[in-house]
Amino acid sequence: MTPDEFRKRGHELIDWIADYRAGVDRRPVMAQRAPGDVRRALPATPPHEAEPFDDVLRDLDRIVVPGLSHWSHPMFFGYFPCNGELSSVLGDYASTGLGVLGLAWQSSPALTEVEEVVTDWLRQMLGLPAEFSGVIQDTASTSTLVALLCARERASGYSLARGGVREIPAPLVVYASAHSHSSVEKAALLAGFGRDHLRLIPCDEAFAMRADALAVAIADDQAAGRIPCAVVATTGTTTTTALDPIAAIATLASRHGLWLHVDAAMAGSAMVLPECRWMWDGIDGADSMVVNPHKWLGAAFDCSVYYVRDPDVLVRVMSTNPSYLQTSADREVKNFRDWGLPLGRRFRALKLWFLIREQGVAGLQARLRRDLVNAQWLAQAVGGTSPWRVLAPVPLQTVCVRHEPDGLAGDALDRHTLGWVDRINRSGDAYLTPALLDGRWMARVSIGSLATERTHVERLWKIMHAATDGGAGFSRP
Amino acid sequence: MTPDEFRKRGHELIDWIADYRAGVDRRPVMAQRAPGDVRRALPATPPHEAEPFDDVLRDLDRIVVPGLSHWSHPMFFGYFPCNGELSSVLGDYASTGLGVLGLAWQSSPALTEVEEVVTDWLRQMLGLPAEFSGVIQDTASTSTLVALLCARERASGYSLARGGVREIPAPLVVYASAHSHSSVEKAALLAGFGRDHLRLIPCDEAFAMRADALAVAIADDQAAGRIPCAVVATTGTTTTTALDPIAAIATLASRHGLWLHVDAAMAGSAMVLPECRWMWDGIDGADSMVVNPHKWLGAAFDCSVYYVRDPDVLVRVMSTNPSYLQTSADREVKNFRDWGLPLGRRFRALKLWFLIREQGVAGLQARLRRDLVNAQWLAQAVGGTSPWRVLAPVPLQTVCVRHEPDGLAGDALDRHTLGWVDRINRSGDAYLTPALLDGRWMARVSIGSLATERTHVERLWKIMHAATDGGAGFSRP
Repeated sequence: MTPDEFRKRGHELIDWIADYRAGVDRRPVMAQRAPGDVRRALPATPPHEAEPFDDVLRDLDRIVVPGLSHWSHPMFFGYFPCNGELSSVLGDYASTGLGVLGLAWQSSPALTEVEEVVTDWLRQMLGLPAEFSGVIQDTASTSTLVALLCARERASGYSLARGGVREIPAPLVVYASAHSHSSVEKAALLAGFGRDHLRLIPCDEAFAMRADALAVAIADDQAAGRIPCAVVATTGTTTTTALDPIAAIATLASRHGLWLHVDAAMAGSAMVLPECRWMWDGIDGADSMVVNPHKWLGAAFDCSVYYVRDPDVLVRVMSTNPSYLQTSADREVKNFRDWGLPLGRRFRALKLWFLIREQGVAGLQARLRRDLVNAQWLAQAVGGTSPWRVLAPVPLQTVCVRHEPDGLAGDALDRHTLGWVDRINRSGDAYLTPALLDGRWMARVSIGSLATERTHVERLWKIMHAATDGGAGFSRP
Repeated sequence: MTPDEFRKRGHELIDWIADYRAGVDRRPVMAQRAPGDVRRALPATPPHEAEPFDDVLRDLDRIVVPGLSHWSHPMFFGYFPCNGELSSVLGDYASTGLGVLGLAWQSSPALTEVEEVVTDWLRQMLGLPAEFSGVIQDTASTSTLVALLCARERASGYSLARGGVREIPAPLVVYASAHSHSSVEKAALLAGFGRDHLRLIPCDEAFAMRADALAVAIADDQAAGRIPCAVVATTGTTTTTALDPIAAIATLASRHGLWLHVDAAMAGSAMVLPECRWMWDGIDGADSMVVNPHKWLGAAFDCSVYYVRDPDVLVRVMSTNPSYLQTSADREVKNFRDWGLPLGRRFRALKLWFLIREQGVAGLQARLRRDLVNAQWLAQAVGGTSPWRVLAPVPLQTVCVRHEPDGLAGDALDRHTLGWVDRINRSGDAYLTPALLDGRWMARVSIGSLATERTHVERLWKIMHAATDGGAGFSRP
C-alpha cells in the first residue's frame, strides 16, 4: 500500500473508528455470537490475489464488530476498565505508523528516552520515590513473572549462570494472598518454584492478606528448612479490590530477606489521587511493583509499567549481549531489552505520553474521582435495598453485590446469581462479571469505562432490579 | 478526547504518517543524536493541565522523529527487515481503535476466532501440515521461552504442579547451535536450566549446526546421567541466515525424546515461497516453531506466530482458570490466555489479516523474490571485487561481507571493518549492523525493507566503496 493509498484509506478508517466510538452505546455490550460463528463466516484459505480494500473494511463491519464484546461501551461493567482514551489511541497510531523498533538504544534513541521520561512522569504522578525506575511491559502477568524470576535469581546467587534452579540447596517459597490474581500463581509455576512452594495466605474480613498469617507461614517454612524467597502483595485485588497491608508485609519482607513485589495493576492508577495513597502505605519498601496504565488510567492496551528499586538485579537476570546488538553507545545508555523478556520492543511510550499531555494530570484525576463517587453511589443504593447486599468494602470502583431473596441459600442462591447476571449479559443492555467470594457466586460491578457517567450506573441499577424480578423488562431476549 | 476531536486529529495524524513514509528516504537513516539529547529536550515533570494537541504533534516532529533510526528507510540494511506494510498498519489501527481485549473467548469472540483463522492461513502459506495450531505472541524471545517451559514440564512430568524444578532427579539439558540467537540462551536461563546445561553445538563451514556433534553431545549427557530435554534448531540464523539440518535434528530429537523447537523468526517468511521450503526440510517433526510475520513478511510489529503440534502440553503448562475468568462457553472454545504468558491480549490478528488480504499471497511472494534476487546481485558484485569477500552462503536476503585490504589482519582488520561501517552509519546515507563471525568483525547487509529496490542496493555498494576508500564521498560527516 502506497503512502497515498494509506492517506485515503487511513482517513476512512479514522472516520470508521470515530463512528464506532460515538455509536458504541447503541450496540449490545456482549457479543451476540455463538462459538464458531465468526470462524465460519471467514474463508478457510488465504486469498492468492490481492483483495479490494473495501472488502476488508466491509468484513470488519459485517463479521468482526458483531463478534465483539464492547469494552468502551458505557454499560460495560465487566472485568476491569480497559480504557483506550482516544488521545492515547493516536499515540499508538504514531508508534505503529513510524514502525521503528527498540533492540538497542541506537536502533531508535527516542524510543528509549521517551520511555525513560514518561515512566518517570508516571512515577511522580503516583507519588513514588525517585529511586524507582520504570520500564513498559505488555501486561502485569509478564511484569509479575519478571519479578519472580529476579527474586529466584537473587535468592539463589544467580544460579542461572551455573547449574540452574536444581542446584539451589532448599526449596524457595513464594507467598501471596489467597485473593491474589491468577497471574501470580502462573508466574510462580512458570518460574519453577512449584505449586508445593506457593503459599496462599489467608485473608481478613476485608479480603486483605493477614500479615500475622504471613509471619507464621514464613516461620513454618524456615523451621522446615525451606527458603522464603518472595512475597507478592496486592493493592486492589481482582475480586473485591482488597488492599493488602503493604507496610506490615514490607517489614516482614525486609526482616527475612524476601523480594517484595506489589501488584497494583488495576488500582495503581488511583494513586494519581493523593487521597488514595494511604491504600499502599509502605510502598517505598517494595523491590518491584506493577501498575497498568492500560486499565483505568486510559492508555491504549498494552501498557504495563514495571518499577524496580534496583535495576542491577533486573539487568543481571535479563541481559544478553551478542555481537550483533552491540553499539558504541552501550556504556552511556539504557538498553531496555535487558529490562524484560522480549528483545524487540514497540514505541509504547508514545501512547502514555500522548495521554498524559492531552488530558493533563488534572484531567485524569477528575475522571478517576468521578468513578469513585459513582461506585460509592451504587454501593449505598445497593446496601440500602433489601434483599440486596454489598459483600465487600468499596475503597475503589468495584462493587461486589448479591441479591439474596428469602429462602435462597447455597447452590440455589448460586443458580439465582448466575442466572440474573447471565440474563443481563445476554440481553446486551449491560455487562457484568460474576466471581466466587468465600465459595459463593456474586456479581462484580466494575465502574470506570471512559464513557460511563452516573446515568449509566443508575440505569444498571434498574436493570439489576428487572433481572432479579424474573427477567422482565429486557429489550433483547 | 471526543470522537469528533479524534476524527479531526486522526486525519492530521494519518497525513503526518503518510508524509513521513513518503519522505523517509530524505532523512538520515541512523539517528543523529547523542545519548541524552531526547531526554533533555523533554520536560522532567508531567503537565498538570491539559496541553494543546498541536504541541504534542509539534514535539513529535521536533524531538521524536530526529531521535529515530528509520527502519522503513530504503537504505536500512541493519538487523533484519522489520516491515510495517501500511495495510497492516491500518489493521493495527483498527485493533487499537476498537480497544477490545482478549481474556476469555467471551470477552471478544472475534478476537479469538480471527486469530484462529489467520494463523491457519499462514500455516497453509508456509506449507505446514494441518496438525500445527498457531497463536500470536509478541516476539520470538517469548515464543522460545514458552517452548522451553513446555519442554521442561513435559520432561519432568509437569513438576510445576508439585515441587517445581528442584524435584527433577537429574539436570535437564538444552541444545542449540553455536549460532543460535541470544534469545535461546536467555530463555534457557530464565526457564531455570542453568548455563551449565545449555550446549552450544559446533557448526559446519556453512555455520549450520552439525547433527553429528549434536548426537555426540546427547550421548555424553546421557552417559553422565543428565537428561537431554530440548533442542532449538534455527532456520536462518541471525548472523549469517545459516540453515540447521532440521530433518537430521528431528530424527535425533525423536529418538531421544527431546522437544524440538524451530526458530524461523526471520527466515520463516521465506517459506511462503515453495522454492525455499527445502531450507526447513523435516519441519513436520518439530514440536513447536516460531515465525515472525512482523519481520520480512510485513506485519506491523509485534506479531510473532508460535505453532505447536500438541496444544495440550501448552495449555497444561500455561492454563489458569480463576472464577472471574470462567464463562459458560469455555468448553466449546479456545481461550488463548492458556497459550502463552500474558492474560490480556490485543486483537493482533487484524494486522495479519489486513496484510494478507490487501497484498494477496502472490503479492507477498513477489516482494520476497525481489529481495532474494537483490541479495544474489550484491553477493555476486562483492564476491567478484577484490579485496572484498562474501563470508557465508547467501540462501536468503543477508549478505555477510568484509573488505580485506592487503596487509590487514587480526585486530587491525577489525578496526578497519568497524571503522568503515561506523562511517556509513554516521553519515546517515545507509545503515548496516556489524557482527562477529569466527571471532572477527564483519558487516551484515540485511536486504528486505519494503522500499528497498535494486537501485538502493546498488547505491549501498557504491557507498561501501567510498567508505573503504577512507571515507570520501559522504554528504554528511
